[in-house]
Amino acid sequence: MEIIEGGVTAARGFFAAGVEAGIKYKNRKDMALVYSECPAVCAGTFTKNVVKAAPVKWNMKLIKEQDTVRAVVLNSGIANACTGMEGISYNEWMAESMGDALNIDKYDVCTASTGVIGMQLVKEPMSHGFKLLAQNMADTKEAGTLAAEAIMTTDTVSKEAAAVCDIAGKKVTVGGMSKGSGMIHPDMATMLCVITTDAVIEKSVLQKAVSDVVNETFNMISVDRDTSTNDTVLVLANHMADNMPVLPDTAEYNEFYNALKYVAESLAKKMAADGEGATKLLEVKVVGAESVNDARVLAKSVITSNLVKTAVYGSDANWGRILCALGYSGAVFDPDIVDIDIISKSGRLNLVKDGKSSGYSEEFAGRILSDSEITAVCDMKMGEASATAWGCDLTYDYVKINGDYRS
Amino acid sequence: MEIIEGGVTAARGFFAAGVEAGIKYKNRKDMALVYSECPAVCAGTFTKNVVKAAPVKWNMKLIKEQDTVRAVVLNSGIANACTGMEGISYNEWMAESMGDALNIDKYDVCTASTGVIGMQLVKEPMSHGFKLLAQNMADTKEAGTLAAEAIMTTDTVSKEAAAVCDIAGKKVTVGGMSKGSGMIHPDMATMLCVITTDAVIEKSVLQKAVSDVVNETFNMISVDRDTSTNDTVLVLANHMADNMPVLPDTAEYNEFYNALKYVAESLAKKMAADGEGATKLLEVKVVGAESVNDARVLAKSVITSNLVKTAVYGSDANWGRILCALGYSGAVFDPDIVDIDIISKSGRLNLVKDGKSSGYSEEFAGRILSDSEITAVCDMKMGEASATAWGCDLTYDYVKINGDYRS
Repeated sequence: MEIIEGGVTAARGFFAAGVEAGIKYKNRKDMALVYSECPAVCAGTFTKNVVKAAPVKWNMKLIKEQDTVRAVVLNSGIANACTGMEGISYNEWMAESMGDALNIDKYDVCTASTGVIGMQLVKEPMSHGFKLLAQNMADTKEAGTLAAEAIMTTDTVSKEAAAVCDIAGKKVTVGGMSKGSGMIHPDMATMLCVITTDAVIEKSVLQKAVSDVVNETFNMISVDRDTSTNDTVLVLANHMADNMPVLPDTAEYNEFYNALKYVAESLAKKMAADGEGATKLLEVKVVGAESVNDARVLAKSVITSNLVKTAVYGSDANWGRILCALGYSGAVFDPDIVDIDIISKSGRLNLVKDGKSSGYSEEFAGRILSDSEITAVCDMKMGEASATAWGCDLTYDYVKINGDYRS
Repeated sequence: MEIIEGGVTAARGFFAAGVEAGIKYKNRKDMALVYSECPAVCAGTFTKNVVKAAPVKWNMKLIKEQDTVRAVVLNSGIANACTGMEGISYNEWMAESMGDALNIDKYDVCTASTGVIGMQLVKEPMSHGFKLLAQNMADTKEAGTLAAEAIMTTDTVSKEAAAVCDIAGKKVTVGGMSKGSGMIHPDMATMLCVITTDAVIEKSVLQKAVSDVVNETFNMISVDRDTSTNDTVLVLANHMADNMPVLPDTAEYNEFYNALKYVAESLAKKMAADGEGATKLLEVKVVGAESVNDARVLAKSVITSNLVKTAVYGSDANWGRILCALGYSGAVFDPDIVDIDIISKSGRLNLVKDGKSSGYSEEFAGRILSDSEITAVCDMKMGEASATAWGCDLTYDYVKINGDYRS
C-alpha cells in the first residue's frame, strides 16, 4: 500500500464539486457533490442514535434496496434532523433535484446534511446549488478539495486522505473526505465521511470491510452512546480498476483492507486533532487487555474523560484521572498491576508502575504533555488484546464554541 | 416530615469537629470527625469503580463484619487512592490513631479521604489533627458546620441538611453533610457524605433505605461509569430517639425514608449546583418513560451531555442537543412524539412538540435559560415512569479549575 495525495477524486471515474449556495453562512462553501461516471456499489455505516436524521434514513434505504448508486450530495449549515415528515420530503427533494441536475434517478443519489438540527432545508438557495454542483464538477484533485471544504462546519481544516494498493497486478485507489470535530463532542459534531474506490468488489464484501474498518477507526474517536443524529460513512466502489474481484480471506482482501483502513484512520485522526477548541491530539493505546472489546472500552473511557482532557490541556501529569477512567470503564482488571506511560516527540516516561506512581519527574512529564501530539500507553497486563483511541484536550475554546454554537 | 437547620450534629448523641491540621492547604480546615456517644448501626454505599481507595475498602469491610461503629474520621487534600499496600496501612493507621484519641477501637472508626490521588497520607501533621479533633468535638450545630467545611476540596460552599420526622409519636432526626462538586466531573470530584440519625432501626433495614435513597438522589447526579475511586455514603443510626424500631413496609418506614431522602436529595442538589465552575443548576425531569430504569438512563444522558451543558451556559435553547442526548442514551423510544419544555422562575415554555420545534419564542427561551435554576421536562409518551437528574452548566471556569487541579 502506498500513501498518495488527494481525496474523493483520487480513484478513477470519480468527480466532485464544492460550491457556495448561501444556505446559512456567508461567503462560504456549503454544498458538495461526489459523482461516479459509472454505477458504483455502495456500502455504509450510520449513527446508532434512536434519533436519525432524514438523510440517514434515506441512505439506509438506498443501500438496503439497491446494489449501486451514482452520486452523493451533501450540504452544511442545516442537518435536516428532528424535522419530521416534512424533513423526509425535503430530503427526497434534495436527492431528486440533484438527480435532475445530473440527469440520473433520485434513487441513485445518496444524501448527507450537517449543521443545526430542528431546522428545515431551504429550497432557495439550494435549488441553485444543485445546478452549480452539476456544472462545476470535475475529476481533479482541486475538485475533491473543494468538496471537502464545502462540508466543514466547526471544522478548522478540511480533511482528505488517499492511498493506492496493488490487487494482483492492478492499481486500486482508495480516497476519501470527512468532516466533524472529532470525539470532543461527537454527540452533535456530525461526522460525515465519503470514501471512493475504483476497486472491483462485491457489495457484501465491501460492506464487511467498511464495518470492520469503522470499528477500528471512526468508532475509536466516538463512543457509541455519543453518536450524532447524522453520522454517516459512505463508501462507493465503481469497479474501474479492472482488478480481479476482491474476495474475503485473501491476500488481496488484506491489501484492500489496509488501504481502506489507512484512509479511514487518517481521516479519523484529523477529526480528533481538529476537535472544537483542541490544541493537542491525544492518542490512548491500551495493551495487554483480556479482549479486544475490553481494550476498546478502556481506551474510549480514557479518551472521553473530561478530567483527562482538561489535564492534558493543562499539561498536568494527573495520571490518577487516567487510572480512574480505566476503573469506571466497565472492563474488569487488576488496578494494582497497571502501568501507564506517556510518549511525545520529547520522549517516553513511565508515570505509573503496578498501579502506583513511579516517582517520575514532574518536570519531564510536563515537557512531554506540552507537545501537540501525545500518546498514553496503558498496559493492563491481563492478556494480549490491544486497541487505540484518539481524542483531544478540553479547552476554554470548546466552551466558547459550544456556548453559542448557533449564533 | 419537617425540615430543620443543621447537619451531622442535628440528631441526638452525635458530636463533630473540623480542624486545620495543615495536610496540604494553608489556613484551611482539612480534617473532620463525626462521633456518636453510643454505638451506631452503620450502612453505606460505595463507588463501583474497579479502582477503590484504601478508606473505601476499609469501610466496606467494617460494615460487612460488624453491626455498629462509633466514629467517622475524614480528611481533605489527599485521597489515599492508587497508593497500594502502603496506602492500606496508612488508612488503618488513620483509623487507629483516631480511635486512640477517642479511646475506642480502630474497628469502630470509619475513614474517608478526598483530594489528590496517588499520594500517601502524611503522619505529620495528621497525628496532631487526630488529637485536635478529639479535643474540639462538640454536639453543637457549629461543630457540624466546621466538619462540613473541613471536607471541602474544590467545593465553594459547605453542604448540610437536616429533617425531623415522627415515628409513632417519637421525634426522629436525620442530618447530614457532603462534599463534591457534583456531576460535572464525578469521575474525580469524590463525593463524600455522612448522614446521622437517632432512629432505632436495624442495620439491614437501614441499608435497604440507604441503597434505595442513593439511587434516587446521589446516583442521579453521578452516572455509574463516572464514579470516583473514593465515593462514599455512610449513614449512622445510634438509636437514641427511643422510637419503636422502623420496620419495612410500614407507614413509619415511609416517614423515615422521606426524611432520609430529603436530606440526601438536598445534599445532592447542592453538589450539582456547586459543580466546578457552574453558574446554573440544571434539573432534567423525564416523564412518560416505559420504565423507571429508562427514565433514569434518559435523564442522566441529558444531564451529562457536554453540549447540553454548554448550551445552558450560553442560554441557548439548542433543544436538538437534548433530543440527541435522549437518542443516544440507550433507551428505546419514538423520537417523533417527544415533547420538551423548559421551566424557570421566569415561566414555562414548550420547545419541542412531537419531536419538532414548537415554533417557540427564542427571546423568551433565552430569558428562561438566563435564570440560575432551570428545569427541562422531557415527555417520552411511552409509559408512566419518571425520574429526575440534577447537574449544572459547563463553563470556562470548569476548564480553568481542572486544567491545573493540582497546583
